Amino acid sequence: MTKTTGVGRPRASGAAASKREARLAVLDAAGELFTGAGYAATTTRAIAERAGLRQASLYYHFPSKEDILAALLEDTVRPSLDVAGGLSAEHAPVGTRLWALAYADIHLLGSARHNLGALYLLPEISSPRLARFRAERAELKRVYGALVAAAGVPGDLSGIRTDLVFGLVESIAIVRRDRPDLDVEAHAVEGADSVLRLAGLGEPDAGLRASARSLLES
Amino acid sequence: MTKTTGVGRPRASGAAASKREARLAVLDAAGELFTGAGYAATTTRAIAERAGLRQASLYYHFPSKEDILAALLEDTVRPSLDVAGGLSAEHAPVGTRLWALAYADIHLLGSARHNLGALYLLPEISSPRLARFRAERAELKRVYGALVAAAGVPGDLSGIRTDLVFGLVESIAIVRRDRPDLDVEAHAVEGADSVLRLAGLGEPDAGLRASARSLLES
Repeated sequence: MTKTTGVGRPRASGAAASKREARLAVLDAAGELFTGAGYAATTTRAIAERAGLRQASLYYHFPSKEDILAALLEDTVRPSLDVAGGLSAEHAPVGTRLWALAYADIHLLGSARHNLGALYLLPEISSPRLARFRAERAELKRVYGALVAAAGVPGDLSGIRTDLVFGLVESIAIVRRDRPDLDVEAHAVEGADSVLRLAGLGEPDAGLRASARSLLES
Repeated sequence: MTKTTGVGRPRASGAAASKREARLAVLDAAGELFTGAGYAATTTRAIAERAGLRQASLYYHFPSKEDILAALLEDTVRPSLDVAGGLSAEHAPVGTRLWALAYADIHLLGSARHNLGALYLLPEISSPRLARFRAERAELKRVYGALVAAAGVPGDLSGIRTDLVFGLVESIAIVRRDRPDLDVEAHAVEGADSVLRLAGLGEPDAGLRASARSLLES
């Protein structure tokens, strides 16, 4: 459903645009309340109020509070999965690809408007409605694991080392909580350097970082 | 208040022993419910029921649910602070002391009956009643920071590097959630090795690990 406004390309209709805006307003309000007041303490009524919608409109987009949590958490993983997919097509060295993925991932978790990584430890994560989030996060971890193995970490250690690498990346949620004034860019650079150290790839230099950044731009 | 039972040393009275047991039963029940059902979803009534006590007895030990949370969380930090205090009296090399602290800390968080590190990201952590836990955790982080600086990490990087080291240690809470079959001993060894890599101390060898373990036993 589109309408044309004089000359130029057809645009999304007002109705479609406002549906999209309503969905985003719900996600933003929920992110703020879940990380601030807590998931269990937040009602869908409070989310609708903060988003400036009637509760019926909220239910149109999300049948339950867990569906909102699922959508929020999927958004913390999917952009990094997209980066991982793009990197797999490149013939860059494994260290460059691992640095690029860790840098992008820490940046995403560190710069999101709300500290959504803090929600990863909720008991509700094991709910059936969160299955897609769990599967996508497991797929992202599998990509880290493949890069850690390709870096030369022996098979019997690559599982634990991947746990440590993934834990280091996700620990940005704890750091954000402790340091409201966090310098995300500096933390992402040091974090990606540290991931390479954990993978046994030694000290990254400026050339590797520059190559990794241009992989991300391509 | 003691009673003697025939010959031998005086023992703690039944009343004192059962007060201590009641306190431990409350903490164990709360640890299970907070990590399983969630903090907000757990009532003091449910904790008392699971601990096999009347609610009045629970309130005798803990005036509020937040006091139970505070006691549980302080127990996740204080033993590592004790280790840190013991290590500061030793003249062992900085790498040996850092390995020993990280190994003991990961082991403590990884082996506790309930995955209490998962509670560090609760919004309730900022409550006034959690002030002592926050201060003790900050003191533990300060010790890591002093060791990272002593390892030779430049001053402008030692803050971020300490955040990464501390995040790596505490990420055991995420790993425990993901892997119910976690090998805590292997994870603690690899985790402590990884902390040394982050501090720029290179690859730890069997000799360093053995020295660190004997520091912990002394």
